[in-house]
Amino acid sequence: MGSSITMIVPIVGVLALLFTFWKSAWVSKQEVGTERMAGIAKNIADGAMAFLKAEYRVLAIFVIAVAILLAVSGNTADSSPLVGLSFVIGAICSALAGFIGMKVATKANVRTTHAARTSLGRALEVAFAGGAVMGLGVVGLGVLGLGSLFLIYSGLGWEINKVITVITGFSFGASSIALFARVGGGIYTKAADVGADLVGKVEAGIPEDHPLNPATIADNVGDNVGDVAGMGADLFESYVGSIIGTMVLGAAFILTKDANGGILTGALGFEQGNDFSGLNAVLLPLVLAGFGILTSIFGTFFVKVKEGGNPQKALNMGEFLSSGIMLVATYFIVKWMLPETWSMGGFEYSSTGVFVAVIFGLMGGLFIGMITEYYTGTGTKPVQSIVDQSITGSATNIIAGLGVGMQSTAIPILILAVAIVGSYSFAGLYGIAIAAVGMLSNTGIQLAVDAYGPISDNAGGIAEMANLPKEVRGRTDKLDAVGNTTAAIGKGFAIGSAALTALALFAAFITAYNLSHPNAQLVSIDITSPYVMAAMFVGGMLPFLFSALSMGAVGRAAMDMIQEVRRQFKDIPELKAALAVMRKNDGKEFADWNAADQKTFDAADGKAEYGKCVEISTAASIREMVRPGLLAVLVPVVVGLTPGLLGLGSELGAKMLGGLLAGVTVTGVLMAIFQSNAGGAWDNAKKMFEEGVSINGQMYYKGSEPHKATVVGDTVGDPFKDTSGPSLNILLKLMSVVALVIAPLL
Amino acid sequence: MGSSITMIVPIVGVLALLFTFWKSAWVSKQEVGTERMAGIAKNIADGAMAFLKAEYRVLAIFVIAVAILLAVSGNTADSSPLVGLSFVIGAICSALAGFIGMKVATKANVRTTHAARTSLGRALEVAFAGGAVMGLGVVGLGVLGLGSLFLIYSGLGWEINKVITVITGFSFGASSIALFARVGGGIYTKAADVGADLVGKVEAGIPEDHPLNPATIADNVGDNVGDVAGMGADLFESYVGSIIGTMVLGAAFILTKDANGGILTGALGFEQGNDFSGLNAVLLPLVLAGFGILTSIFGTFFVKVKEGGNPQKALNMGEFLSSGIMLVATYFIVKWMLPETWSMGGFEYSSTGVFVAVIFGLMGGLFIGMITEYYTGTGTKPVQSIVDQSITGSATNIIAGLGVGMQSTAIPILILAVAIVGSYSFAGLYGIAIAAVGMLSNTGIQLAVDAYGPISDNAGGIAEMANLPKEVRGRTDKLDAVGNTTAAIGKGFAIGSAALTALALFAAFITAYNLSHPNAQLVSIDITSPYVMAAMFVGGMLPFLFSALSMGAVGRAAMDMIQEVRRQFKDIPELKAALAVMRKNDGKEFADWNAADQKTFDAADGKAEYGKCVEISTAASIREMVRPGLLAVLVPVVVGLTPGLLGLGSELGAKMLGGLLAGVTVTGVLMAIFQSNAGGAWDNAKKMFEEGVSINGQMYYKGSEPHKATVVGDTVGDPFKDTSGPSLNILLKLMSVVALVIAPLL
Repeated sequence: MGSSITMIVPIVGVLALLFTFWKSAWVSKQEVGTERMAGIAKNIADGAMAFLKAEYRVLAIFVIAVAILLAVSGNTADSSPLVGLSFVIGAICSALAGFIGMKVATKANVRTTHAARTSLGRALEVAFAGGAVMGLGVVGLGVLGLGSLFLIYSGLGWEINKVITVITGFSFGASSIALFARVGGGIYTKAADVGADLVGKVEAGIPEDHPLNPATIADNVGDNVGDVAGMGADLFESYVGSIIGTMVLGAAFILTKDANGGILTGALGFEQGNDFSGLNAVLLPLVLAGFGILTSIFGTFFVKVKEGGNPQKALNMGEFLSSGIMLVATYFIVKWMLPETWSMGGFEYSSTGVFVAVIFGLMGGLFIGMITEYYTGTGTKPVQSIVDQSITGSATNIIAGLGVGMQSTAIPILILAVAIVGSYSFAGLYGIAIAAVGMLSNTGIQLAVDAYGPISDNAGGIAEMANLPKEVRGRTDKLDAVGNTTAAIGKGFAIGSAALTALALFAAFITAYNLSHPNAQLVSIDITSPYVMAAMFVGGMLPFLFSALSMGAVGRAAMDMIQEVRRQFKDIPELKAALAVMRKNDGKEFADWNAADQKTFDAADGKAEYGKCVEISTAASIREMVRPGLLAVLVPVVVGLTPGLLGLGSELGAKMLGGLLAGVTVTGVLMAIFQSNAGGAWDNAKKMFEEGVSINGQMYYKGSEPHKATVVGDTVGDPFKDTSGPSLNILLKLMSVVALVIAPLL
Repeated sequence: MGSSITMIVPIVGVLALLFTFWKSAWVSKQEVGTERMAGIAKNIADGAMAFLKAEYRVLAIFVIAVAILLAVSGNTADSSPLVGLSFVIGAICSALAGFIGMKVATKANVRTTHAARTSLGRALEVAFAGGAVMGLGVVGLGVLGLGSLFLIYSGLGWEINKVITVITGFSFGASSIALFARVGGGIYTKAADVGADLVGKVEAGIPEDHPLNPATIADNVGDNVGDVAGMGADLFESYVGSIIGTMVLGAAFILTKDANGGILTGALGFEQGNDFSGLNAVLLPLVLAGFGILTSIFGTFFVKVKEGGNPQKALNMGEFLSSGIMLVATYFIVKWMLPETWSMGGFEYSSTGVFVAVIFGLMGGLFIGMITEYYTGTGTKPVQSIVDQSITGSATNIIAGLGVGMQSTAIPILILAVAIVGSYSFAGLYGIAIAAVGMLSNTGIQLAVDAYGPISDNAGGIAEMANLPKEVRGRTDKLDAVGNTTAAIGKGFAIGSAALTALALFAAFITAYNLSHPNAQLVSIDITSPYVMAAMFVGGMLPFLFSALSMGAVGRAAMDMIQEVRRQFKDIPELKAALAVMRKNDGKEFADWNAADQKTFDAADGKAEYGKCVEISTAASIREMVRPGLLAVLVPVVVGLTPGLLGLGSELGAKMLGGLLAGVTVTGVLMAIFQSNAGGAWDNAKKMFEEGVSINGQMYYKGSEPHKATVVGDTVGDPFKDTSGPSLNILLKLMSVVALVIAPLL
């Protein structure tokens, strides 16, 4: 059975990629609209591509350097060069996932705008098609990459242990690119956003996405490099990480140590002669992921809305349908692949138990998503409390938002604790890992929904810049808003799966260390040991330092941008003149301006040097992503290797590395929830004023003093929710993967 | 030797208290000044006393309830009622420490104001005398309480194990009162402060501490209940906690288990017949604390400044002199009380090693203090970066401050990690505990310096309210500013000792569990266990939830205050009229107003209903302190006992409780540093504008737009640095103490 499965998995990956080519071709065939729209879209697409090129140029150096280090490190004796190769392939797949997503997103944005000129349903179709390309591209590359590496390496006749150790290089490659992409993209998008807002909106009084603002193209490029490419790389690494983590733990069913610490191959830990070969536990996550691709593709066909229909319903239909099928299928796949019961290391396993573990994961993700929605959604009690506190100014708005963010960690952490204990008690450490896989098996369609948001957002920006009628922007805004609930659920899955995957990788690290050090006694990592505790403190501190670095980077990059925009307003005479007449006619409709003013204003069209702003954002974000990225990769290596180099024993290094990982996991998850939710809540508190809110019985609207206070909160929340918050999810997994890869070296 | 020491220790405690009576009488004998000053001071003193009464009334219920629970819980079989009694005594001593401090502070404030009318030196003398009463009162009560309980209980002929278990009740009492006092006081002071600022300063345009503002007395009461009484209770619990933690770990040298798990009394673990009785390791922290009292008293005599002298030098003189003597004395005390070398559990101990551990603690505290000063001090690079970012508004000011706060965790955590590993490798777990004692042995004079700050601050407020000449306020401001560096060092010691004490108590909890469960196998708390990891997540989350609760409480209480102040401005005709003429004569000196306006203004004097605002702050803070306080006490009990009640075994409960403590310690320390330093940095960024700062070559002053942005940051920082931040230090120790007390019950 095992070998036929290993053949089929990569084929499903190829299938997913074929689907993305087909969808992508369909998107390309759609009409672009007016010449002006095409021009704007081209600027955005060029800017995005320029960023990716610059980013990949820097990352290529990093990838080659690390690959060489891995190859010569000798962490798996004879096969180290292949670990380096897996790393390179992982890095390339991750970069490719971002590239595909961004390519299609920068095509779909303008086509969505054009479709929105005729109908909401058409616009949804185009935007979602763009998202689907991204979603299926990510999972397709993941399954194809992992599946073929497994097929090839296991074809070399190696022990399963060695196969998987070599494959972890793939996960390492995926995670490190993801971190750089998330951080770089996050810095880019927020630097452009904050810069465009502070000088354009606040100082010069230009509306958002206005062509007079030199930073406006950079702002729209930012949505693509941050929210699309960044998120693609992010989910690619989650997906791959959870699968790899499960494979390593599954391999423990095959490999156990004998009494002398030697490795017994084929010691299945359960009755010999059973049909089950233990290998199935390794392959299960791949099979679930592969089947998830099929249900995701199936689900995309149900995301359709007739004229006057509800787009929210369409998205839910697609997502819940594929989730439902996946759940039922999971039951049968687990029952088919695993034996009824088996035992190992004193633990009684059963296929039903493994399935229950998946349910714990799914329910955990769902509930965390619902809580996320509660703490950040428009009109909920916590967000209303931020609105209420805005009446006494921005200070109380900020205090309230910070409070909501901190408080919002409580229930998700309790849910997570239940999911951890629940999935463990039903299926051991393997259960925790497979719960994460269960959460992520629908990544294909989930990511399609997530990516469709920024595409709609961009479409709205293009409508604004191209001066299209207001109803077009109205339709794209509606599209954008609709995906929010589904996206909140997605966030819940992202956080939940990150925590579970980190734990699985943590356990995998222990397993890998024990397997590669046959005489080691690392039976436990004891927190009563001051060495472990000291390492935990250091690990716990890293998410704070990391957040500080990325927030500081946004601040510095935004300053660069602000200075450039100010320079253009001062140095370009047409812009200066246009701003003057705008201020002079403040509040008047354009049609009512006198002819001379209209002419002055029109003369400025296209005079802003968008390219300069794009260059500045690109250079700043590439420069700023290096420090936090290297921090994540180097710290585990330093902590793990130093005790051994100081002659204190390699075991101490492994234990301290374990403490470091525990610390970074706990505060990383907490800081991620805190920052993402505070940012989300501030954002929606601001949005509530756009429709008007009641505070103490009085109505307030956009432009009121309390609304201005919420604008401050939203600006503070921007780097929280779009730069440092989401990067932490990757940080904690990347550090675990680094530990896993270097385990044999300790 | 042991028994004579146990006699002497309480006597030193009595000596300290005699010193405080003498100093306190001296303060009382000083002149009060004008009738108006006396009236204001009486209002503040009455308000402070009203708060303490209301607080103690609520806490009495809590103390009695917990004491009964402890008495009937049977955690030490026959002696449980004495645990309850120790708890009550600890609670009373803690409350008394707060009471003494506040009593003298509300006397010293006005007398400092009066002294400042003549000279800076006199004012320093009075303010510092008030601080010294507080400082020596706290350490005197601590040493007297612990010393006499030890003397009495060990006189009952009990085993050392039992004596110490019963005494832990004292620490529990001290910690729980401290937490409530810190939280309640913190909410009070910030609700009054924010309320007074937002309506008084911002809305009505009245200067700070102006008698027209109804919240101004409440604001000054807040300085006393928050900064004085709260800090007193806080340091009392740190002091007691570190001593108890060391005593428990010292007792491990006397008690060890035999091979069957039975307890061997008198198994010293080193050569029998040695002069050293093991008991000395238990008594060492008490002796160090007692000697610290003597050096602290000695040091106070050197805090004197001649006219034209530098008060900073005087404070440094007192503190460094007593620290230096203490350090030398510590060496001789350790050498005298402990044998040259001994070994236990495979660890080689030596008296020199124990002394080196103390050095690690002292250096760690000192360095953390210096880093704190770097991240929060006026004119330093990080604070200047906040100033620079204020030029683009309050949003960037907030982002910069959050970034500085997060970044400021990095080096202190590394220092802490070195201190932990260093003190451990030289003297085992006992070394970690004694390092904390070393840091705190000078608490007497350290606290005198800390408490003198709010006394000077209050003195300035009285000068303002009593309309005294400007030079008086100038002198008190100078006094207030002078203590800041010394206070920053104090903060470093507070954070460092809290972390080390929490670790010591954590180790003590494990020891206590093992001793009370002779057949238990709790050799390690393994973070690879998902149960432990889940508990760690929950523990890590608590400081976030706790901060959210206390920040929310400040918000709610401030709202109550704001509404009351607004009501008074509307309902009291004299106030309304006075505000109107103030606004009319905006910017003019009072002497230049016309006579009618002057009359209208003077008619409002004393018409504000200060008492109502005091009542509101009192009621709100008492109401709001209950929830976070109970959270801290109940969670460890629930986590520790639930697994046992569910039939999963008491050992699992102990392990999960261990995980919970590890989580709460790591994120608690991080969040405390983050919040305190962010708040401190925002505060000083604002203060820098008062003297004028240069941003990009241009000078900005008070009242400029960037300055207004820093006011927002300062307001956000207020609850960070004065409510939630400092409470976390207590939270993590309280939870460890609760675990220690319930260990036998698990």
